[in-house]
Amino acid sequence: MRRAIRLAARGLGFTSPNPVVGCVVLDADGRVAGEGWHQRAGGPHAEVHALRAAGERARGGTAVVTLEPCNHTGRTGPCARALVDAGIARVVYAVGDPNPTATGGAQTLRAAGIDVQAGLLEDEAARGNEAWLTSMRLGRPFVLWKYAATLDGRTAAADGTSRWITSAEARADVHRLRAQADAIVVGSGTLHADDPHLAVRGAHSDVSQPLRVVVDTEATVKPGARVLDSAAPTLVAVAEDAGTGHLEGHAQVARLPRAAGGRGLDIAALLAALDERGVRSVLLEGGPTLAGAFAAAGAIDKAVGYIAPVLLGAGPAVLGDCGVTTIGQALRLTIAETSRLGPDLRVTAYPPHHVPSVPATEES
Amino acid sequence: MRRAIRLAARGLGFTSPNPVVGCVVLDADGRVAGEGWHQRAGGPHAEVHALRAAGERARGGTAVVTLEPCNHTGRTGPCARALVDAGIARVVYAVGDPNPTATGGAQTLRAAGIDVQAGLLEDEAARGNEAWLTSMRLGRPFVLWKYAATLDGRTAAADGTSRWITSAEARADVHRLRAQADAIVVGSGTLHADDPHLAVRGAHSDVSQPLRVVVDTEATVKPGARVLDSAAPTLVAVAEDAGTGHLEGHAQVARLPRAAGGRGLDIAALLAALDERGVRSVLLEGGPTLAGAFAAAGAIDKAVGYIAPVLLGAGPAVLGDCGVTTIGQALRLTIAETSRLGPDLRVTAYPPHHVPSVPATEES
Repeated sequence: MRRAIRLAARGLGFTSPNPVVGCVVLDADGRVAGEGWHQRAGGPHAEVHALRAAGERARGGTAVVTLEPCNHTGRTGPCARALVDAGIARVVYAVGDPNPTATGGAQTLRAAGIDVQAGLLEDEAARGNEAWLTSMRLGRPFVLWKYAATLDGRTAAADGTSRWITSAEARADVHRLRAQADAIVVGSGTLHADDPHLAVRGAHSDVSQPLRVVVDTEATVKPGARVLDSAAPTLVAVAEDAGTGHLEGHAQVARLPRAAGGRGLDIAALLAALDERGVRSVLLEGGPTLAGAFAAAGAIDKAVGYIAPVLLGAGPAVLGDCGVTTIGQALRLTIAETSRLGPDLRVTAYPPHHVPSVPATEES
Repeated sequence: MRRAIRLAARGLGFTSPNPVVGCVVLDADGRVAGEGWHQRAGGPHAEVHALRAAGERARGGTAVVTLEPCNHTGRTGPCARALVDAGIARVVYAVGDPNPTATGGAQTLRAAGIDVQAGLLEDEAARGNEAWLTSMRLGRPFVLWKYAATLDGRTAAADGTSRWITSAEARADVHRLRAQADAIVVGSGTLHADDPHLAVRGAHSDVSQPLRVVVDTEATVKPGARVLDSAAPTLVAVAEDAGTGHLEGHAQVARLPRAAGGRGLDIAALLAALDERGVRSVLLEGGPTLAGAFAAAGAIDKAVGYIAPVLLGAGPAVLGDCGVTTIGQALRLTIAETSRLGPDLRVTAYPPHHVPSVPATEES
């Protein structure tokens, strides 16, 4: 299963709106006969790749797969049926499929007389698929908030300069995060301060470029902004009453309700609009105002901070108002990982509402 | 030598104004014959403890010691002489003694026909003695800036509440830092916001209590403040023209020049005043204004941050104005260590001016 989880990870950034899935087929003697992973949306599922590689050796063998085999016919046929047809005797999967249109695979397999076991390395496999699983569970895109800050929590110096606070190693890692996301979201403050491009560059640029999303309530972005170039598609989210004539031909526009009683747009509506466009995972890149609005809306599912050993003593903070006024209301996360990236530190944390593992539908 | 370095560390918090020192005496056959460490200022040096433990077995043996044996008679006799008298044939030490009144030990030993080798595990031994070595090198106390902050760099919520941002584990670690310091320094802002006690509690309270220092330019601290109780001595640093009648009988008072062109007191004068009182190491506990003044003065020699996985989105930042207005002027440190303390993260970093190791005076 650990091998299957590693195979699955090769699909990150290519499979949306599908999950990543890895599969290892063992022959009747327990030797590896075939491997596969879901390589791109619309292409064969992991099980089909692995069964093809195994050929006749699959008969009487075991399929080890990170996600419960699907039971529905989409752009490809149901994997449960393919496993039955290949003569597989036993299926071991890690995580039950929460997708209401695809679930039921285990039942189909058992009905065909196949021995089915669920839950092996479930937490690990679920972590590898956390964006898709979270989006299924919450019915909205998974939101990873990424920030870069100094040791004293600043994102820029007093005069607004910020290039560069973090190292080249940390910035390359951000491109990895971008490559794994379906959409990258920034606010108009960041847009005007940094004129960011938001396209994936470097070693990860072989993925399809994520949707660039600018949360720009008053539609202030001007043609000529780097985010409106042709490197990747762009969506500008504006208030329902904003004038957007100047954006015609430059970007898609989503008209959304304003936040109740606050500045900016309604975050739930924004996420729903992205969900409708097939976005399962969002990389929220800032700035502080937008990140605060997401935090206040309970819409941060994971936080990745790049912390540079730098002191500024002044300048904008990494996170703006998120509705917390006293220590008892603080948003408390759990640190899942810390690692060094060149001179910098990367901290990964989860809020309490985020439980990446989904219980297996049943134990055999 | 690694054993000697570990022995030396047992003295942290007890030996000031002396360094910590550890010593292992091997007999002529290379077996451990005696161990010792400098246990308290005024007491026997590490070499003397180890020689006593070794007794006659020291004759023809080797002394392994973390610091060059001293050459002067203070409250105790010179260790170089004690090693010669004990018949030691070889001395291996890690770090040369930079103290002008005590150096020369290696020369004395060599003149007596002893084989002397310097520099073994020098960096590691120097790190174990970094406070004392830095204070010797710079002619002022070593300053460790400790802060506790959220992931978004806040030290308190918008309403000023901060109990507790970090965990009990992190707070216990702070008491370890306090126990190892000669003085704990806070500003008047922290004093009035938190009414801190600043005494060492818990597992580390067997040390002599560090001097509590309040930087209180206008002498605003009032009798009744917890920092003025009898748990530990207290020094209130005030401007030369401040009225301090209300402090008589409650604390020592140091009158210092105001900072040139800025708020508060002159940091160099403050450190000189502490140095005069035998303070070799300072734990700077805040708040942001005072930490900014120390940073601006180049007077932070080590930073230890306790970072809690908490988001506040508002509230005071960890570090105030330190004279940096643009990214090119940023103070850049080097992360030396990160570790987890309960749910929190501890980050240890050094500024470029801080080189804990002192070159050995000579190589043999």
